[in-house]
Amino acid sequence: MSASHGTFGARIMDLADRLAAHSETPGALTCTYLTPAHRAVAKELAQWMQAAGMAVEIDGVGNVVGRYPAEGRSAKTVIVGSHYDTVADAGKYDGRLGILTGLVVIEHFNRTGRRFPFGLELIAFAEEEGLRFSASYIGSTAVAGCFDRGLLIRRDRAGISLGDAIAQTGFNPDAIPNLARRREDLAGYLEVHIEQGPVLLQEGLPLGIVTAIAGNCRFAVTIIGEAGHAGTVPMGLRHDAAAAAAEVILAVERRCSGTPTLVGTVGRLQVPGGATNVIPGRCELSLDIRAGDDATRDAALADLRTEIAAIAQRRGVTIMLEEMQRMGAVACSPRVQALLAQAIGRAGSTPRYLPSGAGHDAVNFGPITETGMLFVRCGNGGVSHSPRESITAHDADLAARVLLDVLETYQI
Amino acid sequence: MSASHGTFGARIMDLADRLAAHSETPGALTCTYLTPAHRAVAKELAQWMQAAGMAVEIDGVGNVVGRYPAEGRSAKTVIVGSHYDTVADAGKYDGRLGILTGLVVIEHFNRTGRRFPFGLELIAFAEEEGLRFSASYIGSTAVAGCFDRGLLIRRDRAGISLGDAIAQTGFNPDAIPNLARRREDLAGYLEVHIEQGPVLLQEGLPLGIVTAIAGNCRFAVTIIGEAGHAGTVPMGLRHDAAAAAAEVILAVERRCSGTPTLVGTVGRLQVPGGATNVIPGRCELSLDIRAGDDATRDAALADLRTEIAAIAQRRGVTIMLEEMQRMGAVACSPRVQALLAQAIGRAGSTPRYLPSGAGHDAVNFGPITETGMLFVRCGNGGVSHSPRESITAHDADLAARVLLDVLETYQI
Repeated sequence: MSASHGTFGARIMDLADRLAAHSETPGALTCTYLTPAHRAVAKELAQWMQAAGMAVEIDGVGNVVGRYPAEGRSAKTVIVGSHYDTVADAGKYDGRLGILTGLVVIEHFNRTGRRFPFGLELIAFAEEEGLRFSASYIGSTAVAGCFDRGLLIRRDRAGISLGDAIAQTGFNPDAIPNLARRREDLAGYLEVHIEQGPVLLQEGLPLGIVTAIAGNCRFAVTIIGEAGHAGTVPMGLRHDAAAAAAEVILAVERRCSGTPTLVGTVGRLQVPGGATNVIPGRCELSLDIRAGDDATRDAALADLRTEIAAIAQRRGVTIMLEEMQRMGAVACSPRVQALLAQAIGRAGSTPRYLPSGAGHDAVNFGPITETGMLFVRCGNGGVSHSPRESITAHDADLAARVLLDVLETYQI
Repeated sequence: MSASHGTFGARIMDLADRLAAHSETPGALTCTYLTPAHRAVAKELAQWMQAAGMAVEIDGVGNVVGRYPAEGRSAKTVIVGSHYDTVADAGKYDGRLGILTGLVVIEHFNRTGRRFPFGLELIAFAEEEGLRFSASYIGSTAVAGCFDRGLLIRRDRAGISLGDAIAQTGFNPDAIPNLARRREDLAGYLEVHIEQGPVLLQEGLPLGIVTAIAGNCRFAVTIIGEAGHAGTVPMGLRHDAAAAAAEVILAVERRCSGTPTLVGTVGRLQVPGGATNVIPGRCELSLDIRAGDDATRDAALADLRTEIAAIAQRRGVTIMLEEMQRMGAVACSPRVQALLAQAIGRAGSTPRYLPSGAGHDAVNFGPITETGMLFVRCGNGGVSHSPRESITAHDADLAARVLLDVLETYQI
């Protein structure tokens, strides 16, 4: 490593601040797909990539793609990527950290004339959060060749379809399949991302190695009990939908505790039209189960289905589970995990393996090329999707040095 | 008893149907304080009372008061009463059953020329449910001498104050204190009411003797935990407000089960702005604890406060209880309970003692005169405050015969 300690980190923090200046919402950071703020970020990223020696193109879905050529004639490419769209009232680092880490590393390669036996593509994906069209990963699915064309008719709140929004920027939505990379041309996919959780912070470690990106199952759960007067129905004669929900919540918590990588959450919870003096006749809640591998998730789910049926039977209530989403887990490449571990060790830190409970663009590359993810510690208790999201320049610097090291040692 | 079996019941059912024809809401029964429907019911009740030999007056808060004189000169009065206002989309018997039972019994006394050493007052209270002004018991507190004058400035949804609403009917709100009966003139208060619960139905008994009208405590409970990403925060690092709420709900259920007359209910429950993929950072719920005596209620409450504090501590969340209401329990007269039991036995049924978990006009008379309540079995699982509320003519008949018997044997 020839860059002096700290310079990568300071530059990443500065560039993240500059990107955050483009926002749809005054006083807060919101940058959703194909808005003027979003287009301005793409333009700025393209300029920075160009200055770093890359051939830059904004592709047919808005991804900013910078190509840093191989040292000889090579068709093989390693992609470094993450996304530049944000949630509403977002932090500055979710997605963007991965782009900027790749940028400062390639700036360094360009400055020092370093080339590799493979080309590098730095891709700033245009859409990952799914905010505007309730469709996630528009950018990375296009590049990975798994874009769902059915989404083109999906409309935003203003009634504009995804297809029309893309066409209005001058691109041809029908040409999206042409953006797909050929599997045989890819030599790997690397993504640096903030952890969006508290694990590294709790353990005092700056970096983590993602073992797998968790799959999930999401359910809408409806419990039908029997409403009644809170004063007149003895406890033993009740069929209280909220009490049944309480048992479900604690069953989820109990079953998902103690198994590594497994998490279960009831995020929505409501007694519709509930009143202080009425025993709840109905309760609605959501259930989200994730694990680093599908077998772990599905075993938990099967146990919970059994337990929920027992709760319903014992309480004389009806509990209905409607499956809203199911995505398989994506394992990261063991070889890339090992490269990351060696680089983290050389950078003076301790490798910490952990799954990603959140989805990332990397999920779309896992099935087609060797994929690795490096997590960076979040401050403020690990909060993300919030203006309180934070990282340190020190950690960003370390992440850049580890990415640089991995690319230096990468074999195709 | 000289009335042939069944005639009281059939007449009560018929009169309840006729009262239900006056409603503010087409296709449903709603009759709230001092609306045209409410005034029409008062007028009809006054006519029926007059025809039954009573001297009738609609008093200064809208109560319909029928006086059936004593056989000699007696200043002592036994009141038979209940309310004629309803909740929205109500049943036909809540409140009205008590008025009509008194009416058919006095009709019988009048028909047969029966008089007592005490006067009878049949009072149809104008307001008990508290719907229009969020103030309950306007009718019975006026008569019992505990009307809260501070309520006169309370406004309904249209912005009309209680004082103005009363003045618009031609009454003087400042004269309400004059409606109070003198304690020394009262010889008792009797109220027949539907149970509004499932106990008698479950046990196959038509009638119940109320031992006490439960006091209650109501709290607004707010739980503050820590929001987080449902995928990225391991179970062991969470401070989930909904999971804490689940423990509170089950603690309430557990503590209030197994103790006679004690009930506890979480009727409102919500994660405000909850999302499937967000660990709840806040959860709001209501807590309602009632028991037949205050010591039982307060012991449960003390235990729950301790347990809730332990839940908060163990989970690293904050749980705040804000007391919204506290009303003491009102015991019914043992002597009147005994009279009711004897009369029920003579009517061929079995006395069943039970507390009233719901409040009734009787609570306002308990502190000033010997007070008794007779419950009548509800059909449809015990539902009330619903068009599905139901009783049988058979049970209504039995209730009238028991009331008649109690008045025949009543000693002052």
